[in-house]
Amino acid sequence: MAVQRLTSRDIRSESRLDVMKALLVAGEASRNELVRETGLSPATVATVVGELITAGIVTEGRTTSGGIGRPTRVLHINAARGLVVGVDVAETYVRATVFNTSLDEVESAVVHRDEHEHTVEYVVDGIERAVDTALASAGAEREAVLAVGVSLPGLVVRGGSTSVVVPELTWHETGVDRIRERLALPVVVDNPLKAVAAAELWFGEGRDCDSMITINLGTGVGAGIVIGGEILRGATSSAGEWGHSLLVLDGRACRCGRRGCVEAYVGAPGILETLREIDPDNPLVRVGAQRDVIEALAGELAAPEPDPAALETIARTARYLGSAIADLVAILNPEAVALTGWTAWALGEHLLPLTRSTLVAQAPGESAVDMTLRISTVRGNSVATGMAVSALTWFLADVGLVTRVPVGL
Amino acid sequence: MAVQRLTSRDIRSESRLDVMKALLVAGEASRNELVRETGLSPATVATVVGELITAGIVTEGRTTSGGIGRPTRVLHINAARGLVVGVDVAETYVRATVFNTSLDEVESAVVHRDEHEHTVEYVVDGIERAVDTALASAGAEREAVLAVGVSLPGLVVRGGSTSVVVPELTWHETGVDRIRERLALPVVVDNPLKAVAAAELWFGEGRDCDSMITINLGTGVGAGIVIGGEILRGATSSAGEWGHSLLVLDGRACRCGRRGCVEAYVGAPGILETLREIDPDNPLVRVGAQRDVIEALAGELAAPEPDPAALETIARTARYLGSAIADLVAILNPEAVALTGWTAWALGEHLLPLTRSTLVAQAPGESAVDMTLRISTVRGNSVATGMAVSALTWFLADVGLVTRVPVGL
Ligand SMILES: [Zn+2]
Ligand SMILES: [Zn+2]
Repeated sequence: MAVQRLTSRDIRSESRLDVMKALLVAGEASRNELVRETGLSPATVATVVGELITAGIVTEGRTTSGGIGRPTRVLHINAARGLVVGVDVAETYVRATVFNTSLDEVESAVVHRDEHEHTVEYVVDGIERAVDTALASAGAEREAVLAVGVSLPGLVVRGGSTSVVVPELTWHETGVDRIRERLALPVVVDNPLKAVAAAELWFGEGRDCDSMITINLGTGVGAGIVIGGEILRGATSSAGEWGHSLLVLDGRACRCGRRGCVEAYVGAPGILETLREIDPDNPLVRVGAQRDVIEALAGELAAPEPDPAALETIARTARYLGSAIADLVAILNPEAVALTGWTAWALGEHLLPLTRSTLVAQAPGESAVDMTLRISTVRGNSVATGMAVSALTWFLADVGLVTRVPVGL
Repeated sequence: MAVQRLTSRDIRSESRLDVMKALLVAGEASRNELVRETGLSPATVATVVGELITAGIVTEGRTTSGGIGRPTRVLHINAARGLVVGVDVAETYVRATVFNTSLDEVESAVVHRDEHEHTVEYVVDGIERAVDTALASAGAEREAVLAVGVSLPGLVVRGGSTSVVVPELTWHETGVDRIRERLALPVVVDNPLKAVAAAELWFGEGRDCDSMITINLGTGVGAGIVIGGEILRGATSSAGEWGHSLLVLDGRACRCGRRGCVEAYVGAPGILETLREIDPDNPLVRVGAQRDVIEALAGELAAPEPDPAALETIARTARYLGSAIADLVAILNPEAVALTGWTAWALGEHLLPLTRSTLVAQAPGESAVDMTLRISTVRGNSVATGMAVSALTWFLADVGLVTRVPVGL
């Protein structure tokens, strides 16, 4: 693949996205405030705002007249321009979240799915039901939807073939076409790592960083990598599969077939495995579903005198995690790393101190000393939020305002 | 650090570099051939060629009149525009290589250095002697030099402080200033991983790839990472320190202080350690200097019936290397990986088959199946070549043709 050449159209496209992002985050802003926030010239901001108003995406609101100088009009995203839907197809559920054009969450619906049923029709059924249920709650019709973004757990590859790390859902392009047919709406597809990175890039740590890594901690583990302000996709869309990089050569068996993967140690089942190694008879081991065990572990750690086995589990997990992040830092040397996902929400604050000190000790030279390591500030279902960002970007491309839509399919 | 915004000046700058690279590789080309080679429009090529001719960097040569159509003028780089020098400060020597403006090697000189002597003045002495000796062999004065590129083994960081993974040379910005003072020439500085990647980007695998990794195998081990056609530097210039990412948690001690680093297994001393583990009394172990042992090992492997311990050393090293490259592929998912450095020249062909099969088995999904893995086609001292590329780019920036010089300092 040859190097993608940027054109002056791409630069104008970037300026429009910068103004959109600034307005989405600020809620409302004057042209002068947008100049300060984006670093664009006043002339560029004036042009871009004009284009966005013409397309019905931005509206001029009330006039402020306070203080010095002449009154200025306040701009905001036209929330009523249309809806976008972000869909998270996870292992045991499908969640559809409806957003307005300002990317405020309107309604959400969850459809449970049997994790052993992998046919395209079954999964497409679940997506359709979740989307329709969420739209019904919002009192909206499909016609009001500008675009739908769907996160699928496989690795989506352009050009026909698709591969998955965890052999769970194998989505060929025909499967994606079935989603489009059934919803009769524009659909963009990506994988959860990229979706989470998109959410972080628009609303979290990524807003101020040129290079940033989102680490998703759940049943599976992966990284959303941002370099030069863009999400790294890779040659076959599988960049970020850090969960299946090595922590221990010939170590624990991983569900991907390799041994010693990071995921086998810091994924939720890996954390339970560590607890079982420390104390096979610990009552926490018998709590049941992995998510409940992680919550119970978090509860135990919040107790006045936590169970020593729980403390030791956190200590070992933090060292595993710190070592594994040190590898990412050695290779990519980012400005910031944000931890996200349900394991991060539950255990993150307990893991953070020892993870950080392990990382600083093991990353090359001083590369981790000034690096930001924190729990992501993007809460809620960041997969759905990220896919809504992609859907909105697709719509902006469809009306000719944006040149490149960063999605898998 | 905010996201770097590209401007239309940057796009013109990229077009000029594309034309330069195409001319350097082709030797000579017509405007039409440059249009085909670069993918730029005829109008852009005409403008860029005009600018490069005005700056004295490109010359119009003979007229071709063969075949159909009107005669066209053939263009080439004006090799006599001036010299650039690439300097490789290695652990035991300093090599300076003089290139003409077409980046043809003119002369080279090596000054040995005591690897235990790390003062700035001692190293700057070595650099000055190597540069002057090479220039004298070329019959040239310092005045003929457009710029000098120096590769230093530390991590060069903008903004005053510098850190090194291997605590060997700690170069603060003042040290770099001393090189500038002593040579009284424009000097750009980078580290060897980035230099090798620059050479690969202009003359090797990187010419046709959007994403590519150069793996440098020698005493030390590291990766030069190209993403989006650009060398990844990282927040503190330490991107690519893959040699100090983990292969084995709590494994062999590495000279960086961490345990289980990739370098401790696939660096030259790591390969010798593997041989020693397999057969402590093997005669190869007693050959002497690590470079001589690696050469002797290569000789043994070329024998009709190679020593089983030598074969087993290669097999284990290939598995280590394949596993370690699988991690890079999991995280970055590049189009191609090129092995380079003296260990790669000596042992690469023996390592390649098992490295490739290990990599394909362990990289996520199908990500390594279609990936190119080969020994780099850039021969000679690619550190010096890469630093000459950086020096030439600096010169192009100095005359206003290029907006960004991808170097450390
Ligand atoms: Zn795995
Ligand atoms: Zn190391």
